[in-house]
Parts: sequence; structure tokens; C-alpha cells
Amino acid sequence: MLNLPKEGVLSHQPIGDFITEAGAVINDATVAFQRWGEFRGDPHGKNNIVLVEHALTGDSDAATWWEGLIGPGLALDTDEWCIICTNVIGGCSGTTGPTSIHPDGTPWGSRFPATSIRDQVRAEQIFLEELGITRFHAVLGGSMGGARALEWTILFPDAMGYACVIAVSARSSAWQIGIQSAQISAIVRDPAWANGDYYSTGASPQNGLAAARRIAHLTYRGEQELDERFGTIPQAGENPLGAYRRDDQRFAVQSYLDYQGDKLVERFDAGSYVALTDALNRHDIGRGRGGLNKALASSIVPTMIVGVDTDILYPYHQQEHLSRNLGNLLAMAKIVSPVGHDAFLVETRQMDRILRNFIALTQQVPSPNELAERNGIYDI
Amino acid sequence: MLNLPKEGVLSHQPIGDFITEAGAVINDATVAFQRWGEFRGDPHGKNNIVLVEHALTGDSDAATWWEGLIGPGLALDTDEWCIICTNVIGGCSGTTGPTSIHPDGTPWGSRFPATSIRDQVRAEQIFLEELGITRFHAVLGGSMGGARALEWTILFPDAMGYACVIAVSARSSAWQIGIQSAQISAIVRDPAWANGDYYSTGASPQNGLAAARRIAHLTYRGEQELDERFGTIPQAGENPLGAYRRDDQRFAVQSYLDYQGDKLVERFDAGSYVALTDALNRHDIGRGRGGLNKALASSIVPTMIVGVDTDILYPYHQQEHLSRNLGNLLAMAKIVSPVGHDAFLVETRQMDRILRNFIALTQQVPSPNELAERNGIYDI
Repeated sequence: MLNLPKEGVLSHQPIGDFITEAGAVINDATVAFQRWGEFRGDPHGKNNIVLVEHALTGDSDAATWWEGLIGPGLALDTDEWCIICTNVIGGCSGTTGPTSIHPDGTPWGSRFPATSIRDQVRAEQIFLEELGITRFHAVLGGSMGGARALEWTILFPDAMGYACVIAVSARSSAWQIGIQSAQISAIVRDPAWANGDYYSTGASPQNGLAAARRIAHLTYRGEQELDERFGTIPQAGENPLGAYRRDDQRFAVQSYLDYQGDKLVERFDAGSYVALTDALNRHDIGRGRGGLNKALASSIVPTMIVGVDTDILYPYHQQEHLSRNLGNLLAMAKIVSPVGHDAFLVETRQMDRILRNFIALTQQVPSPNELAERNGIYDI
Repeated sequence: MLNLPKEGVLSHQPIGDFITEAGAVINDATVAFQRWGEFRGDPHGKNNIVLVEHALTGDSDAATWWEGLIGPGLALDTDEWCIICTNVIGGCSGTTGPTSIHPDGTPWGSRFPATSIRDQVRAEQIFLEELGITRFHAVLGGSMGGARALEWTILFPDAMGYACVIAVSARSSAWQIGIQSAQISAIVRDPAWANGDYYSTGASPQNGLAAARRIAHLTYRGEQELDERFGTIPQAGENPLGAYRRDDQRFAVQSYLDYQGDKLVERFDAGSYVALTDALNRHDIGRGRGGLNKALASSIVPTMIVGVDTDILYPYHQQEHLSRNLGNLLAMAKIVSPVGHDAFLVETRQMDRILRNFIALTQQVPSPNELAERNGIYDI
């Protein structure tokens, strides 16, 4: 039987030495994870596991960052489904990343190798195997989590029944690489960065990380929502219209962005931010697979695609591209919101409808494994 | 008679001590300018002057940055019109700005006061008066130049017959303030910034300025155009997919953005970049005028509004807002292009049609001054 940790409790699973797509080794890697809902079924066949993938600075605590969507009676109903969420490799919330301790007893820092979205998925696949799981019902996620869900369907098509890919593209666009590289640049230009080996210096590139987050946040939020909230209002007690420009005399939106930057600095590591942003830059479903649309066409997993109408980071035409080219499109849904990219995290009512529809479809449409079994092509 | 400089030659006109909107003084200010085409008419009445306003890092050399649009037989036909373009106050191409010499003999640096779009227009109005001009045919410009053209129509409605306002909004949006502040932040976090007084240090915040430009460029260019050009292609001879992330192993789009940053560093001053970006943050037609739409409604100058369908910096809905609320809309035109904001600079064929239409309309529709004279309300 599966030996899963207590519901909601952060747990850790060693996965051994991990070799990256580009050929480097991460020794004695560990994957942090949480689960909600009881496991039912066959860990090598039909079961009730739904794998949830977090976004760039998310973590395994999916019930918190998707509050209102995971729990008893909610769209991802933990009375029915066993939800598992892992922290991504390269992260800083329990899974091995740049802050983790290298076998030599000091933090990995600059020695932590580059990882790709495929590495994130392969690490997760090994993790599941270590838990004793080779099949699961569905994988879903948004943004970087959506990229992982999509890679799962191409890398391990037999491992899952269904996928839901939210607010992401088939590969990074040049604009995404550009704006993501601007964020990496903000961090590595911080004098405290120390080439990524700042963990023992007593300083940390907090200013660079906060600057990166401020830029990122402007790609996560729609300009209409920001404008409705802040417009050109000065921050209370400050005068951004004074006779001399001063960094401490701000518009309200500057204060809001400063807050977003500071909040991330408190909970996230700059080295992980660089590592995961670089992984996003490398996102390309087509790499080594005969090109983008050939790779998408090869997909056999029924996949639902979700996008946001005002997303400037992953514009909706990128989800339309996925929907046209995926080999097995299950459904398509559009979140309509002034919020932009983050809508998949904050438009809970719409996400509730979308996730309920997705789950319902997975119960109506046969999975490739079910079809194969019915046709007697193979059995497990 | 007007004593204008030789065609195309950079010239300088002192405008005396200039007091900013926020109450600071810029002593002995000078405005740099160029003109093309012979002046004809009455400098205090009907004449053939068309005032062209440059964008953030532009200069008075309009015939170069609008190549193909200003010259004999072109849309802004210098056989017919006298084109005048000034460098903006706060700039670094001849008009007084942070690099200029303060009365004490050292550069202004941090002592250069904050300026607004209204200051830019008032400096230009004084400049014209010093030349002996109180009326002109039309004002036009894009981006920050569009903001100036729009402020002209509200600050000095009797001074001109017509305006053409391109790829700008009635005020900064919160998103614009956010992304512009990210650029200022990139510069002031550069250790060489020295609080704006780097001119005598032997160093200059080039890295910060280049970083600012890379961010800005991603708001000037449409993501579809960038993706068509660069996609996920590695820069020639570099490998951004190696086992370790390295700053010198780039995607082609990173190299392109680096080039854009480096190119700006060669021709532009970081202090001016901060000053003018701050001026853009302060752009608000409604300030002190009973609100945005009341200010717009008060406009009497026939004004053409132009936007770009893929502009993420000044989205087209902002030009639609202007068209709905301006007191005297002359016409509206949309540039259709994957290029984004910069389309008003690079889609020459479309801009040619638009500017020819604008000039034709100015010759068909009576100006407010002409109407007032016809009705005998006042004469000049």
C-alpha cells in the first residue's frame, strides 16, 4: 500500500542523484510535497490522484495558493480526489535548489546547475515512482505549472489520464525571454549577488530580487485592473509631484509594487528565482522533437487549455495556438477578467467552474490507457 | 521678419530663467531646435509652421527619426510647411538638462528639478515667443511627443490651429508609472549613479541605463513582432541551454536587447533618462483642471488621435478614450501592425497616409481662430 504523509503536512522524499537535461548532476536530491484527500485505486493503474503544479514562486501548499478550489466539496474535491503538489526542483520551499546543502556541506549556490521544465517534470516522475506511483488521474497547473503539466503529457503520456494546462504557451516567446532576462539581470547586477554564492556572505541580493518582482508583477497583472485600483493617485503622505524627484515620494502604484517586491524577498530566495526563471526561458515543447507543432500533434493525453483574455505574459493567442495544434484537445476555456495573467489564481469563481468542468470531462471521456485496455492493445 | 537658422542645422535659443510647474528654477535655460522648409505667413496669425514633438529619447532631428515623412514632397512636405522640432527641456541633445552646466560652472546633476509634460510645453512656448512666433498651424507628435501635443492644445489653445496626438493617453496609467519606475529604479540602483551627480566621478550608470532601455524596449515592441524575429533561437555562437546558466550564453532576443541598451548608452544620458521618465510619470491632462474628462472636454483645438492596435505601452483603448472625450475630435486613425508602440516610428507607409490625411483635414476644417475671426469674436 501507499504510505502517504498526513493530510496537508509538508513532507520530503529523497529521489537520489538527479541528472539534468543538459547533463549536470544534482546529488542526493529531495522533493518536498503535500497531499490532501485519501488515495484510492491502483497506484499502477486507475486511481484518484490529481497532481497540481505550482507557478514560479509557488510551493507545494496548493490548498493555500489555490484557496477555495482545493478542499472538501470544492472544485478539486478532497473527499473524492487525492491531490498531490510538489515543490519544483530548483525551488526554495523544501525541494533541492541553490539554497540546499551540497554534499560538501555548503550551499549549492552557483554550483546548482541549470534546469529545464522537463527536468522539473522528470524529478517529479522519479518522486512519484519513489512513492510507489506510476499512474495518476490528471495533472494540472497554471503559468510555469501549466508548462509542467504540458511537458508531462509529452514526456510521460502513459502516466496520466488527463491534463489541464492554464495560462501558458507551447514555448517561451522572445518577449517572455526578454522580460524574464530583465528580471535575472536585476538580480545578478545587485552587488550582493556575488555570482550566486552570497549564502555565506551575510548579504543577499534583496534589492535585485525586489526589483525583479516589481517587473514580474507588471506582467502578472492587467493594466486595466492596476489602473482601476491606483491610477495616478499619490501614495498617502507622499508627493510624487514635488519640485524634485525623490525615491521616497511615490505614486500609490509604486508603493504597491514595492510591497510586492518586499513580500517576495521575505519568502523567496534570489538564487531560486534566477534558476526557475532560467528554466522558464528554456521552456520549449518542440526542442529535440522535430519542432513545436509536431511535438504538440504527438500528444495523446486529452488536454484542456485555459487562458486569460487580458494576459500580457502569456497572451491568449498562445493558448489558441495550443488548442489548434495539440493532438488531443479535451476542451478550451477563457477566463474573462481585467486582472491579467494572475486571474487563474484570483478569479476563483471562474476557476471553480473551469476546474469542475475539467473534472467532469475526465469522468466522461475515456483516457488513452482506458481506450488501449478496451481495445486490448495492452494491459497493466 | 523671422530670423530662422539654416535648414536642418542644430541651433540654440536662450529662454531665460525657467520656473517649473512645481516651483523650481532652471537658470538661463536654452532650447535646441532644428527647422526644415521656409517660413511663410504671419508669425502672429496664419502661417505654415508645423511643430513636431519627439519621443522620450528623441531629439530635434525629426527629419532623421521620422525619415521618409519629413522632406520635399513627403507627408510633412517641406516645400509647403515650415517644420520646427525642439529638444525637450530635461533632455541631453542641446536643451538644458541634467548634463548642462549650472550657473556655478558644474553640471546640474541632482540639482536639476523635476519637470512635467506641461513644463516641456511651456518651455517650448517661451522658445517660440523668443523666436517671434505666437501662432502656428499645427502640432503633432507620438508617445511623449503626443503627450506634449495634447498639453499644447489645453495650455495654449489659441496658439495653434490643429493637433495630431499619436500613441499616447490622457494621463499615465498605473501600469505605465510602474514600468517607467522600474526603469528609473534600474538606473538609481546602479552604484555609479551617485545620486545623480556622477558627471565628475569618471563613472556613469551605463549598466543601469542599458537595463532600463532593455525593459523599455519590451514595451515599445509588440511581442508578436519580436517572436517572429527571434523566437527561441540562440544567439550565434552562444548556448543558452547549457548545463549552467551564464550571462554570456544568450538567446538571440537577449543579444538584441543588449544591443538596444548599449546603443542608447552611447547616445543618451542617464540623468536625462530619469528626468524625462519622471516627467512621463507626471503626465496627467486632468491635474488641476477639474479632472481628466472635463479637461479633455474643454479642448477647442481640432485634434486627430492615432493609435497602434498592438501597443502594450499605450493600449489602443487609451486613444479610444481620448476620442470619446476630447472636445474637438478631428479624426481617428489606427495603425495596424505587429510592431507595437514603435509602429508610429517604423510603419512609414501607414504613417505617411495618416499624416497626409491629417494635413489635408487641416486645410479643409476651419481652425478655432479662423472661426472666431469669421464670427468677429476677436481679431488679432
